[in-house]
Amino acid sequence: PLAYLQETLMGKYGEEAKLIYELQDQGGELLALRYDLTVPFARYLAMNKITNMKRYHIAKVYRRDNPATTRGRYREFYQCDFDIAGQFDPMIPAPECLKIVHEILSDLQLGDFLIKVNDRRILNGVFAVCGIPESKFITTCCTVDKLDKVPWEEVRSEMVGEKGLSPEAADHVGEYVQLHGEHCGVEPLALLFQEGLGMNVAGQAPEVPVRVGSVAGGGRYDGLVGMFDPKGRKVPCVGVSIGIERIFSILEQRMKASGEKVRTTETQVLVATPHKHLLAARLKLISELWGAGIKAEMLYKKDPKLLKQLQYCEDTGIPLAAIVGEQELTDGVVKLRDVATRKEVRM
Amino acid sequence: PLAYLQETLMGKYGEEAKLIYELQDQGGELLALRYDLTVPFARYLAMNKITNMKRYHIAKVYRRDNPATTRGRYREFYQCDFDIAGQFDPMIPAPECLKIVHEILSDLQLGDFLIKVNDRRILNGVFAVCGIPESKFITTCCTVDKLDKVPWEEVRSEMVGEKGLSPEAADHVGEYVQLHGEHCGVEPLALLFQEGLGMNVAGQAPEVPVRVGSVAGGGRYDGLVGMFDPKGRKVPCVGVSIGIERIFSILEQRMKASGEKVRTTETQVLVATPHKHLLAARLKLISELWGAGIKAEMLYKKDPKLLKQLQYCEDTGIPLAAIVGEQELTDGVVKLRDVATRKEVRM
Repeated sequence: PLAYLQETLMGKYGEEAKLIYELQDQGGELLALRYDLTVPFARYLAMNKITNMKRYHIAKVYRRDNPATTRGRYREFYQCDFDIAGQFDPMIPAPECLKIVHEILSDLQLGDFLIKVNDRRILNGVFAVCGIPESKFITTCCTVDKLDKVPWEEVRSEMVGEKGLSPEAADHVGEYVQLHGEHCGVEPLALLFQEGLGMNVAGQAPEVPVRVGSVAGGGRYDGLVGMFDPKGRKVPCVGVSIGIERIFSILEQRMKASGEKVRTTETQVLVATPHKHLLAARLKLISELWGAGIKAEMLYKKDPKLLKQLQYCEDTGIPLAAIVGEQELTDGVVKLRDVATRKEVRM
Repeated sequence: PLAYLQETLMGKYGEEAKLIYELQDQGGELLALRYDLTVPFARYLAMNKITNMKRYHIAKVYRRDNPATTRGRYREFYQCDFDIAGQFDPMIPAPECLKIVHEILSDLQLGDFLIKVNDRRILNGVFAVCGIPESKFITTCCTVDKLDKVPWEEVRSEMVGEKGLSPEAADHVGEYVQLHGEHCGVEPLALLFQEGLGMNVAGQAPEVPVRVGSVAGGGRYDGLVGMFDPKGRKVPCVGVSIGIERIFSILEQRMKASGEKVRTTETQVLVATPHKHLLAARLKLISELWGAGIKAEMLYKKDPKLLKQLQYCEDTGIPLAAIVGEQELTDGVVKLRDVATRKEVRM
């Protein structure tokens, strides 16, 4: 099983397999921290003989990579995957994946972004024309993928040195993969979707441009499920993965630049009391609010000062305070205070 | 740091520490799969110098225990934790934890349940009275905890054999810990909350009783954060953990017994077409529905048969089908069909 696992992982991840966090052998069990959500999904489909499924999955994955936290690159990070598995008519599930990515990035108001669509067969065709042997397509592809991080010279040197391609073939590939825009549709395979360079949200002042590389990527993986099925039964799949931390990096740097403050809770109302011996009244009111589905908080103090309670609202952005004192208890009302305007109504 | 980590883990988990999944040393990094969500939370508070926080956390934890899947006992399982950290007046955050557990278990309609409340000082007092040396309180407690799984004779034998307590002290402890109900408030420490034996949901026929042990547990841990702080600063905490898989076990076994069917999706409407060449119309309508926040699906086929589309609704429990044919396109309407009653309206 060890050899099979390694073979499968190499088949899917190529040289990236070295980034997999392996675990110590635990009494004969071979374990590793998951590298992405795609392989576990494919294995799940194969093991449970599922031929048809659509799901999303948000969870942590692990890579023994060099972290670069400012660019949103971590060793332990979240992925958010959306996949459609099953034998369907062409060009229906794939565009839905594109639509969902477009919806997510638009709703997050990240600014302009660019979705790049590619087909591996184009890149394979380029490799063939350039004289790369077919057995080296995948490994060459891994090297070409690095073009978004390092200059062409470094990529070329890895192709010739580490990968053993001829300098002529490497130069020939270089002519194609350095083309952009109208000249050529070929981009490195990993960059199916890539985040744009500038961050320009319509209607706002120009902001600090944030570079984080691609924030989403995806494509078809029609052979993967079959690799986990003892009988090799294939389940064609298509899916996308959203890089949540990278999106957070963009949002955080933008907020930092604009000085914008974001609330960390959704609390709608603080239940407060203006004087001592009213803990029971606060507990009763907050219980009613919770029961009605209203997001309410109170300070965990027996007799907190009213000023302290209102200050807490201002610090945490809670918009309303529901105040019960002896008078309110007697009258059977609550004093609702708008924290910002200090306006109060009895209700 | 290794000795310190081990010491800390032993301090928190006692003998349970042997259940921790350790990882191979990764280039000098000492790693283990997390055993629960409490220790990571305490470490997070200490490392970020947070003295005040309330949060919930649903995530996987890992234990090298003997799995018993029918009883909801796994090696990889979810925990759902809720904790309140901070220096507050007594008896305010703890009852809130109890209230939340009560709300969760009530809302899930699991049937009758029993919440047991305990104080470790009572058990420590019992141990002292029975002549157990203070240095063996924790280890004795671990053994006594097993009373929910094995009979007293086995627990006694472990106390005397493995733990080296005198037979007299063990017998003395036995007198107390086997008491139940009105006679004595003492229960094994781990059973702060324990699920009741029978499952009786009011207004339903008696169902198959499901035994899963405790479905939630919790308590105070006032010293833990200080163990991770270089200066030993304490942050008192209280929290509960919900055993999601065990609750699923109860729900699944109950559904199996009752033959109840549960939908696996929330899809409100299937977008369907009655004849060929209408893929574009389906895509346009589903896009509008998605845009309006309506949960809609369509079959990923170019020209699916109407019968097949309606059959899909019945199989998956989708209550409505929105049908667009040539006539509907011409009239600018949609035919909405109630799948169960087969009633149709044009709108």
